[in-house]
Amino acid sequence: MLKNIKQNAKIVDIFIKKYFNTQKYSELVPVMKYGTLFGGKKIRSTIILNTSKIFNIRSNQIINLCAAVECIHSYSLIHDDLPCMDNDTLRRGKPSTHIKFGESTAILAGNSLLTLAFEIIADKKFNVDTTVKLNLIKKLSECAGHVGIAGGQFLDLNYEKKKINFKKIINMQRKKTGKLFEFCCLAPAIIAKKNLKTQKEMSMVGAELGLLFQIADDLLDIKGNKKNTGKPVKKDKKKGKSTLIKLFGYEKTLGFALDRKKMIINKLKKYGKKSNKLIEVSDFILNRSF
Amino acid sequence: MLKNIKQNAKIVDIFIKKYFNTQKYSELVPVMKYGTLFGGKKIRSTIILNTSKIFNIRSNQIINLCAAVECIHSYSLIHDDLPCMDNDTLRRGKPSTHIKFGESTAILAGNSLLTLAFEIIADKKFNVDTTVKLNLIKKLSECAGHVGIAGGQFLDLNYEKKKINFKKIINMQRKKTGKLFEFCCLAPAIIAKKNLKTQKEMSMVGAELGLLFQIADDLLDIKGNKKNTGKPVKKDKKKGKSTLIKLFGYEKTLGFALDRKKMIINKLKKYGKKSNKLIEVSDFILNRSF
Repeated sequence: MLKNIKQNAKIVDIFIKKYFNTQKYSELVPVMKYGTLFGGKKIRSTIILNTSKIFNIRSNQIINLCAAVECIHSYSLIHDDLPCMDNDTLRRGKPSTHIKFGESTAILAGNSLLTLAFEIIADKKFNVDTTVKLNLIKKLSECAGHVGIAGGQFLDLNYEKKKINFKKIINMQRKKTGKLFEFCCLAPAIIAKKNLKTQKEMSMVGAELGLLFQIADDLLDIKGNKKNTGKPVKKDKKKGKSTLIKLFGYEKTLGFALDRKKMIINKLKKYGKKSNKLIEVSDFILNRSF
Repeated sequence: MLKNIKQNAKIVDIFIKKYFNTQKYSELVPVMKYGTLFGGKKIRSTIILNTSKIFNIRSNQIINLCAAVECIHSYSLIHDDLPCMDNDTLRRGKPSTHIKFGESTAILAGNSLLTLAFEIIADKKFNVDTTVKLNLIKKLSECAGHVGIAGGQFLDLNYEKKKINFKKIINMQRKKTGKLFEFCCLAPAIIAKKNLKTQKEMSMVGAELGLLFQIADDLLDIKGNKKNTGKPVKKDKKKGKSTLIKLFGYEKTLGFALDRKKMIINKLKKYGKKSNKLIEVSDFILNRSF
């Protein structure tokens, strides 16, 4: 799986690099590149590409979507690391963008990446129907905005040092992390013009994958080290972050994560071999946390 | 003209308010409303609506575009006011968003407004061709991103307390302010499916209007007061902002602004009476600064 992930990350990196070359010159481009290229597993792209296999979509047909999602993910990391947010100084083993370039530049480069994501989808070279493209833009906007990533980050910050119940933590994590994963599994189904039932099912697979990823990330914060995560560890407790581990402890949380994996396998069963690679991603995500 | 502007602002405010009602609930919505509704001249919407008159486009056909542009403008104001940017505590006569709701919430609400802008254009109820919509999304992304608003704000901050020449100041102002004005004049021409020559001409009218607006804003910073601007005045000098006034002085800058107005009138001449309202906007913008 790691080989598959690395290959996919390389394909997406090359595409993003080329896309930047088509852009007009701006002093923010090197900052945007710093935030998107050079490192990162690009796990969301791997999910898009492996979901595409289920629906017989070629990778070069869906590469714009991977790039757009990575731009949005990178923007959210740049902003999350800011002093007034999570105040993290290390990301992907390098100084966070605001440490390297300053706070205002980091915010502006983040904003520019968010903006660029929509341009990449609207681009004429992204070879899917115009109606499909607009649907993708609408869904991606929803997943990134106030009921998605931005809304989830708001809750995450507001839940710090508070006693938060299970339902609220799950809601927060579904928005902060899950929504973009949802989009990654939904988008190929939209492009393949699958019916609404299938689209809903794939959204649910994505939501579970996102939850799994967030829990694995929280577990990794406890068991991992700076070398394999590329960022400081044991910071959730220090910051008083509301995680399932805080609520349930390590073992019970791990059990909850395993349930997510079972759910994913169950939902993908009907696709047979075609879904193998996507199921392997869920293994990879979970195994990271051991 | 003021009546026309006020009427337009009201129409756009009502639409945005209704659009928010169609959105899922999120704690960020009241913050987004605070940044977009309640005040502001919505001069960009007036430009879109008055440019639409030239191309016989009805206001209810183009209202989504006004709302999208206002979301982007409001987001840029919320972020510009942040402590690490222009550090302004007053906006439209009220506390800036970060003063009222805190810094992280202001950033997230800004991001959500930027995201929402693309959703509003992609919305099915926005009744224009899908190809036209995608073209609008691509252009708006360019005008808002690293070669537009975000890039211009980067330059503005980096030019503080430095000796900057005429060419660079103009380039900065064309990005920071001009690009979105360009879009406001270009978009109706795109919707009316005018040829590229006309589109380019309208972009140029928008660019001149944007420059005029920025210069008027700079002049107002010297001659205005907190009551009529809704924000503190005489702050450009304090912050060492690079403006044309700093370079040329008040009188010569005013002359330069009048030249912009002549240019706009000249370019719109061929549209006769149909362009009257748009020309009146340039009068209004300039007169604000006296």
